[in-house]
Amino acid sequence: MILNKIEKTQIEPKITLVGAGPGDPDLLTLKGVKALNTADVILYDALVNEALLNHAPENAIKVYVGKRSGDESFSQELVNKLMIDYALNYGHVVRLKSGDPFVFARGFEEIDVAESYSIPTEIVPGVSSALGVPGLQKIPMVYGNLSESFWVVTGTNSHGEISPDLYVAAKSNATIVVLMGIEKIKEIASIFRAEGKIDLPVAVIENGSSQEENVVVGIVDTIEELIEEKKLSSPALLVFGNVVSLHPQFNAIKEFYSIMAQEEY
Amino acid sequence: MILNKIEKTQIEPKITLVGAGPGDPDLLTLKGVKALNTADVILYDALVNEALLNHAPENAIKVYVGKRSGDESFSQELVNKLMIDYALNYGHVVRLKSGDPFVFARGFEEIDVAESYSIPTEIVPGVSSALGVPGLQKIPMVYGNLSESFWVVTGTNSHGEISPDLYVAAKSNATIVVLMGIEKIKEIASIFRAEGKIDLPVAVIENGSSQEENVVVGIVDTIEELIEEKKLSSPALLVFGNVVSLHPQFNAIKEFYSIMAQEEY
Repeated sequence: MILNKIEKTQIEPKITLVGAGPGDPDLLTLKGVKALNTADVILYDALVNEALLNHAPENAIKVYVGKRSGDESFSQELVNKLMIDYALNYGHVVRLKSGDPFVFARGFEEIDVAESYSIPTEIVPGVSSALGVPGLQKIPMVYGNLSESFWVVTGTNSHGEISPDLYVAAKSNATIVVLMGIEKIKEIASIFRAEGKIDLPVAVIENGSSQEENVVVGIVDTIEELIEEKKLSSPALLVFGNVVSLHPQFNAIKEFYSIMAQEEY
Repeated sequence: MILNKIEKTQIEPKITLVGAGPGDPDLLTLKGVKALNTADVILYDALVNEALLNHAPENAIKVYVGKRSGDESFSQELVNKLMIDYALNYGHVVRLKSGDPFVFARGFEEIDVAESYSIPTEIVPGVSSALGVPGLQKIPMVYGNLSESFWVVTGTNSHGEISPDLYVAAKSNATIVVLMGIEKIKEIASIFRAEGKIDLPVAVIENGSSQEENVVVGIVDTIEELIEEKKLSSPALLVFGNVVSLHPQFNAIKEFYSIMAQEEY
């Protein structure tokens, strides 16, 4: 009993938010590896590659906390509670989140809760899927005259709706990356159509950076059909913008459309 | 002579674009480490932390190719030429770029040149400073009602000017990150002023993620003065948006401004 008490007093609670990157386990940072090396407990999301858990000590507690888009089996409140309980009782909790913890990942909420319990926190940024996944497909965010900026928007905000920001984004010349949007592709494409951008190149990347990665390249006018044809689904991101025309798959489409256009005359 | 010839035929040219992350050497990915481990030549930028070169074999050739914002001592053409020459003559060239190679880093140009020589290429995404640096300051890109999207814009485009996209961005509710903009803060602040956003919170982060990191938090109306007072300069990024109000330094300002506002009545 006394021993138990001594052990208890030695616990130093700490919470580290680690960005796991887009899926490829080698896209974790060295700082992320170091955090996992010293973890007593890991709380990890659905999209996190489980191979990353091998960086943690064998006796560390590994807790799956779900949270795929739309999955409400683990509420944010429950995750927060688990995080605090484990930190107070076991010490160093690594909260392992896919992509970057501060990009649509509610990392700030978790930091905020931890600080309200005076638990020290640390952030380890990760490779965000929003940039890293198009990059692996050799689609740059900005390029020469094609784009001078990029805008990352959610297709599913906290009300379950497309962010109103997308209506403004569609008017701009920015490269636009839409996360959690594939299930609303019809609605999203119509936003770009309303701006007369039916020919704007679009890429859809499913399971980016993983071995199950699938890519489809098209234009606003055809993208819904292509997604259906190739049976792409969540998790996937959409890239709208002229930079998509740099993708090797786009050349074939370009030729096809220019032939179509000629035949119309 | 014969030996020399045999060696030459064994060379397998390859170019890997590696994102080094924002500055902290531990923010390199495992994939980046593996690329450096097998490098014959490394071409690295001014903002890359030289500690990263320790991941490369001792006998690898390490070439500094400058390219700080505004430094034209190493033109893109020269970098391209060096990259190709080294790949053809030495084998695996790692092109080590700060942040992510496809975010304002001309990574695509380099891939394009390599492919025109039929040299195999690989991309290793990195933690982009645009997201990672605010994240380390616990400033999320999106948060509840404060922001549902973020927009990353360059303060210095290929014509040396503020991207016209910033004028559209300033009208939006997105969190706006401006890279390479600190030297044009007066002009940039006036763009937000023109939209009536004099109270919009702004953070300026100099040397993000390094030991020389400096942060200033204010509002559009005061940010120019604060930058001058704290003597911040490039490399730095600017974050405009209500999410900046979550930064601990912002509370003090908020109180100050509400007192000021009361005194006016």
